[in-house]
Formats: sequence, C-alpha cells, structure tokens
Amino acid sequence: MPDLFRRSLLRGALAGAAWAAFPSFAREDLGPVYDQIARRHEEAVRRIQRWIRQPTIAAESVGSEEGVKLFLELLREAGFTQAQRIDTEGKPGVFAVHDAGAAKTLGLYFMYDVKQADPAEWSSPPWEARIVDKPGLGKAIVGRGAVNQKGPEGAFLAALHAIRGAGRKLPVNLVLVAEGEEEIGSPHFPQVVKQPEVMQALSKCGGIWMPFAAQGLDGEVTINLGAKGVIECELVASGEKWGRGPAKDIHSSLRAAVDSPAFHLVQALNTLVTPDGVDPAIDGWFERVRPLSPAEQGMVDAAAKKEREEVMKKQLGVRRWVREIPFREAETRMAGQPTVNIEGLVGGYTGPGGKTVLPHRAVAKLDFRLVPDMTVADCLAKLRAHLDKRGFADIEVKVGGAYPPNTTSPDSPLIQAEMATYKKYGLSPLLWPRLGAWPGYVFTEPPLRLAAGHFGLGHGSGAHAPDEYYLVESTNPKIQGLDGAVRSFVDYLYVLAG
Amino acid sequence: MPDLFRRSLLRGALAGAAWAAFPSFAREDLGPVYDQIARRHEEAVRRIQRWIRQPTIAAESVGSEEGVKLFLELLREAGFTQAQRIDTEGKPGVFAVHDAGAAKTLGLYFMYDVKQADPAEWSSPPWEARIVDKPGLGKAIVGRGAVNQKGPEGAFLAALHAIRGAGRKLPVNLVLVAEGEEEIGSPHFPQVVKQPEVMQALSKCGGIWMPFAAQGLDGEVTINLGAKGVIECELVASGEKWGRGPAKDIHSSLRAAVDSPAFHLVQALNTLVTPDGVDPAIDGWFERVRPLSPAEQGMVDAAAKKEREEVMKKQLGVRRWVREIPFREAETRMAGQPTVNIEGLVGGYTGPGGKTVLPHRAVAKLDFRLVPDMTVADCLAKLRAHLDKRGFADIEVKVGGAYPPNTTSPDSPLIQAEMATYKKYGLSPLLWPRLGAWPGYVFTEPPLRLAAGHFGLGHGSGAHAPDEYYLVESTNPKIQGLDGAVRSFVDYLYVLAG
Repeated sequence: MPDLFRRSLLRGALAGAAWAAFPSFAREDLGPVYDQIARRHEEAVRRIQRWIRQPTIAAESVGSEEGVKLFLELLREAGFTQAQRIDTEGKPGVFAVHDAGAAKTLGLYFMYDVKQADPAEWSSPPWEARIVDKPGLGKAIVGRGAVNQKGPEGAFLAALHAIRGAGRKLPVNLVLVAEGEEEIGSPHFPQVVKQPEVMQALSKCGGIWMPFAAQGLDGEVTINLGAKGVIECELVASGEKWGRGPAKDIHSSLRAAVDSPAFHLVQALNTLVTPDGVDPAIDGWFERVRPLSPAEQGMVDAAAKKEREEVMKKQLGVRRWVREIPFREAETRMAGQPTVNIEGLVGGYTGPGGKTVLPHRAVAKLDFRLVPDMTVADCLAKLRAHLDKRGFADIEVKVGGAYPPNTTSPDSPLIQAEMATYKKYGLSPLLWPRLGAWPGYVFTEPPLRLAAGHFGLGHGSGAHAPDEYYLVESTNPKIQGLDGAVRSFVDYLYVLAG
Repeated sequence: MPDLFRRSLLRGALAGAAWAAFPSFAREDLGPVYDQIARRHEEAVRRIQRWIRQPTIAAESVGSEEGVKLFLELLREAGFTQAQRIDTEGKPGVFAVHDAGAAKTLGLYFMYDVKQADPAEWSSPPWEARIVDKPGLGKAIVGRGAVNQKGPEGAFLAALHAIRGAGRKLPVNLVLVAEGEEEIGSPHFPQVVKQPEVMQALSKCGGIWMPFAAQGLDGEVTINLGAKGVIECELVASGEKWGRGPAKDIHSSLRAAVDSPAFHLVQALNTLVTPDGVDPAIDGWFERVRPLSPAEQGMVDAAAKKEREEVMKKQLGVRRWVREIPFREAETRMAGQPTVNIEGLVGGYTGPGGKTVLPHRAVAKLDFRLVPDMTVADCLAKLRAHLDKRGFADIEVKVGGAYPPNTTSPDSPLIQAEMATYKKYGLSPLLWPRLGAWPGYVFTEPPLRLAAGHFGLGHGSGAHAPDEYYLVESTNPKIQGLDGAVRSFVDYLYVLAG
C-alpha cells in the first residue's frame, strides 16, 4: 500500500472546502457514456465483489495463480487487446495493452494482490465482499482489497466497459503493468517493467497512474507528486559472526564472563541517531540531501493548517512533534527529511515474563526513508562504513527491500489533467511534494522518466486494517460513490486525450 | 532450576578423579537399610515414574492442584507425620514435618513443579517416564522433571522408606518446605516460609538442603556455597508514558516528525553498560560490592583448570571471554561480579521480513545479578535514579522477580557433612563460592540465617531441555544409579546426626 491512504485519511477528517454542483462537462457529449455507467452499476459492483472473493496474498503465497488468471480475464473483458502474464522470480506480473488507435498513450499501474486479513477481527467476513450500510456515507463493499486496490481498479475497468457500451472507442491507448507482490514491497516488479516489450510500450506513454479513491470524509483530495525512497533492512548481531559472546542461547549467569550480542546491537543502534534520538547520525548521511524547493515548500505551507494538525495528532496518538517544532516544520520534515526508524526489535526470549538467557543473537528491523538525491547504493555503503568504523563490522545488514525516491513535476500533463478533472468537480486539490514511500521510481527514473501518480474520485478506508471498505452508493453529497468514481475515470481519460 | 545443573554438567564432562571402591561405612550398622534399598529398587523407580506422569507446570497453570495432592500423598507415604498445603497468592506450597524424636532437626527444600516441555522435541514422551538405555551410562528414566527435581527428590523419599523398612527410626527430625512455582522464579515461596508455624519449625533446623544429582559424567561433584541474587525486570518505553512518539503503532513514514520510543529505549539501554558493553555502568552500582575473600578466591583458583576452560568454551559455544581475560579471571567474575544482561528484546514488528511501522512501545527484558552486599531495594533505587538523571524518567521498570544473594559457610555442619559423605565415596568435591542464582536467601537471610545447600550422589541431565533424564541403573563405575543415590541420602542423614 502506498502511504497515500494515510494522507487521504487525514485530509478526509477535515471539514472544509465547498462542494460544487456536479458538472456536466465534455468536449464531446459524454451523456451516453454516463448513461452506461448508471445502467451498468450492478454489473460493476458484482465485478468488484467477484474480484475480492478471490484472495491473493503474496505474503502467505495464497491464490496468486488464481488471482493472476482472474485479473487477466477481467482485463480482456474490459477490452484490453493484449493481456499476458509475465513470470518473475516471485509471483507473476501482468502486461496488457489496449490499442484504440488514439494519438496519445497512457500508462496504468495495477496490483492484484492484497494484504493479509484475520477474519476474527472483521465485523463482515473479509472474503465475502458484502454490501454494508455505513452511517453518514451510504452503502459500501466490505472486504480485503475493497479500497486497496480492487475497488478503484474495478471502477476504472467499469469506465472502460461504459465507454465501449456507449459505442465509443477509448480516447487514449492504454499500456498496463501490474504485479501481485505490491503488499510485500514489490521485490520483483522491476523484472516486469524491464522486459524489452514492456519497456518499449511504456516509453510511448505520456505518464503512468494508478486508480485510487482519493476523497477523504470531507470529499477533498490531495495530489501527491512523488515519494521518499525506502531501505528496509535487518541489523543482525550474533555471537557466531562477532566471535564474541555465545553461539547459542546460554544461561544468563554466564554474562559475568561472556559478551552480550544484544548489548552489542544496542550500542550499534545508539550510534545511528542524534543524541535526541531524532535524526540520522550516520556518517555523511546528509551529503546528497536536496532541500525542498521554494515551490515544494509552498505546497507544504499551504497544507500546514492548524485544524489539520489537530486531526493528525489525534488520529496518530501523538501529543508533540519532535523537538516541539511547529506543525509547518513537522510537515516540512515529512516531505523533505530522511529518517532512520526501528520497525521492530527481536532478540532472545520474547514471551511473557522473563527467562534467564544470554541470547546469542539479536535483530533490529530498520527502515530508512530517502529523499532526493540520495541513492540506495550510496546509503547502504555509508551505513556499512559507519558501522565498520565504530567496531560493528560483524553486524550484518540484511536488506529486505529498497528503492530510491521519485518525483513527478506538477507541470506534467498527467498532473495537470488530474488538477483539471478534480477542479471540474468543484474540488481544490492540495498538492503534496512527497509521500513516505511508493515504488514509482521504476517509472520516474531513467530510462523511462515518466510522470507518475494516482487519481480517482470516490472513497474508502481500512487499507491493511479490518473492515476495509469502498463506497458504492453515496448518501453524502461531498463524496462520490462508485458511479461517480467511474465517471471521474472517464472524464480523466478524455481530459488526458486533450 | 538453580543453575548448579550447569556447573555439574560442565564438571561432568571432565575426565578426572579416581573412583574409590564403594565404602561400607556406618556408625551403626546400615546393612539392613542398604538391603532395603536394593529390595525396594523397583518400588522407588515406579514412585518417580508416577510422579513424572503428573505434569505440574506453574508457567502454564497446569496440574498444580493434582500435583500438590500427589506430593502430599508421597510425603505421607514416606512417613512425614504432618504434611499440609500452604495456600499462597500463587500455587500452593507445602509444609511437612517428620518428628523422629531425634536430637537434631534438619531442613529440606523441595519443589513439585517442572519446566514446560514440547513433546515434539523429545525422543521419548516427556510425560511417560519411560526407562531408556543411555549408552555408557545405563538405564535412565526419561521425562520432564526426571533430574529437576523429581528423580533426586524421589530418591530421598526412597531413603526414608528404606530406613523405615529396616525397622529403624530416622536419625534426625525433618522439616520440609516446598513450592510449586520454582520454575517461574519462586514468587510466592516467601509466603510459605513466613508462616509463623513454618518459621518456628525452620528455626530449629541445623541447616536446609535440597536433594540433588550432583555427579557429572566423570562422577565428580561440586559443593556450592551460595548464589548471586537476581533482579529480573522489563524496561518499557512507550509513547503513552513518554508523552512523545505515538500512542499506537503508526506508519513509519511519520518518523520524520514523530519520536521513536524504540530508539528512546536503545538510548537508555546504552547507558547501562560500559563502552565495551561488559560491565554495569549504573551510577553507584559497585558501591556495595564485596570482593571475593581470599578463601573464595582460593576456591576459584582451584577450579580454574585449563581442561575445564576448554570444555566450558566448547559447551557454551564461546570463543573468548570478555576483554580476552584468562580463565582464572573469567571464573573470578563468575563468582564475584555483578552483571547486567539483556534476556530479550521485543518491540514493534517481530515477524518475518519487515513492516513499515513506527512502534509506540518497546521492551527490554533484563536480568541483573547481585553479589554480596548488594540488595534488591538499593539496586532498584539506583537503576531508577540513573535513568531519571539521564532523561529516561518515563521508562518503566517492571520487576518480575528479585532476590538477594546468599552465602553459606564451608565450615557449617551442613557443608562439612556433605564433604564428609562425599569423601567416604572416594570423591574430592570442589568448593565453589557462588552460583549464578538460587533463592536460598529465604533461608540464609535473617531471621533464619540457616546454612543452605544441595546434596546427593547420582546423575542426570537435560533440565529445561528435551530428553531430560535421571540415571536409575548405572553401568558406569564412576557414577551412582538410583540405589547409590538413595544410599548417599541415608549416609548423609546419619553423618548429619553425628
């Protein structure tokens, strides 16, 4: 899940911007297409339900074969003229083309996997995709993947069905790439994109985007212009590698004469942050950090509103920002500051109570967020050198997943079209320079250098949590239901077509 | 489990001392008693098996009621004239008396609980107490509790049956106290001992001891003269208490502006040890530390043999001692140095791979070993003050179990009788000043001030591990089987009787 869910959620809880009457806009008359959307509402709902009922969970190796087959079938039904699986060293990816003979070609990024779900935590079974009444919102599909990402993706497929149902050709050609491992950090997605045929098709695109349910509870939307990079890794201290301490867990009374790999790890971790625990303190870590541009700072300033701060603090359970900084500075750091974080600590005895062992091994799970112009390779080299220099050469750095930051210009046609479409719905989207992370780098970095983003009206919530939902019939005048989301995709395609 | 198992195991792997022919000693003729031991061999084996087949696991709250009932029954069968349960806030304790009208009274400390067992790890089911051939040793009972402590305790009960079977009265009176929570750190045992009736009975004792299988694989034994104290506790860092960082796990991209309780914990832990990670660095920690006496140092020097070092290093998987110190110094530290150890680290995401969370809470499970004259209260006050002074006042110290060190004089009649009995079997016991920990303080501290120890020939291994065993028929001339163990208990009682 790209963490834009967080941001939309936060925005969503804000009261605010006025909601304009629904616009009837079109360069050509889209009335017949909109009619098709309304007529095909039940069909579109059932398509999303059918998709949710096929669990595909990369982390548990569940349903990937069935999932990729169903996904290919859904693409073909929606009119993709070519839709093929791309095998990788992990779960299969997908490459599909919809050649409408149009002048412009647009890229699409899809995922067909979902996060794990524990049915015991759900009030409606996660794989049944039931329609549930949400007070103040309307009717929603509840199920794992409902908003992340089968609902919005299904709404986009419904847009293609509606256009075809109205007897129209698509206004743009489509090139779609997809993966079944988004929820485990997209480890093999580059293998899909780097296929010569795929690369060639993508290189013709005027940008690439993912269908999304961008509306918060106030109906407002944020347009994100990129993301930080991330390195997830484990730091592993062990007696075996260290040559000190035990090679297996031993009785803790022996600590009097035997070194502790767990304390060795603690000492190494302690060197990674500033004395106040806030910033990375790894040698040379800030060398390549590019400060926010004035335009980016302007976006942050526009977003850093007092009421937003209060909602954020409440939702996050945070009483104060680091160093008691004001919200504007906190938001500036969100967009522009590299970080080092402990995701998890695991060592020795982890059950209830205590156990008198001297553990032979301890692990810290870390994530580092990178900003332009930091690179993964340079950061890993700096981390290694930093540890080596301080007597921690034995500590292993096991990299789990890593990708660089990505940036898309607000002036790109992709983002301009987003702005224009949202504005036609009476919305005034906030621009945000940089999310916490999403692997858009595969598109934005050389050789492709594509603009990349997320788009879509509509609303859902609960990604990675129980009772995930996607709104299909809205009773809230500020928020679009499924048909409004489908219509926003139709409009977006026509705006992009120019 | 008192950690003397470790020490006997280590000693056990050493080749060494000669084994004398079995002595036929007695102030009165013990021949008829020895005859009873041989005649009642099968009965004694079956008693231990029956006991093992009743699992009593305090950590899992399994079988405590059945366990205490069976234990009381075994005591009454063995001739204890009074045997009663003592309810505590935890599992029940036991108080029993065997009044033989003798001049001297002796204390006994028993446990009726055992450690957990995972049957999947055992080659013979842990609750079946099967008789298994052990190459080079003989026939052994395999089961959870076989050596820790039902085998040796059952052998002691067999000694009482043999004495009675020969028509004799016990040469000493017995006062027995027992608990069903030894394996979870004896949290409620002081409630048993502090009962006025129990305290009064114990105050008449000339010392207190626990039946034990002291022989290593070479047949040799060590006599332990006390133990370090221990404080087990959790250090808990949390956003809630700190007032910084999040109050629940949040997306790790927020780390840019939100403090990390996990790093806060790391920084606190880092202050607890010297820069080389070896010694406690808590303010004032060494103020009350009493160095080893010349006599204690002499014991350590006698034990610090080269071949012993090699066996220890191999068994522990340790290549070097802290600071590359020689073995004598390592052993000196084992006996005389306070320690701080990380038993376990638990925070945030602990599963496979990573998860991009900023955890709201992280926990370090620590144990501290105390030496004379450190006290639990003083150490906890010093730890608190140390943390408070360095900006970690928010970090909770949750004490799990704690007790002070204890020391018994080698000149006490209890230890002198151990020496004398072992020597009659041709053994030259090593003296060791101080184990890693056992809660003998309840007996050695005021007001009781009893000598306290462990005694018994015989052999077993695998305490807290799979395939725990207790030897019942020895084919190894250096090691006593069950009958030899029972005989050593008979002899010990008669030596103590004077």
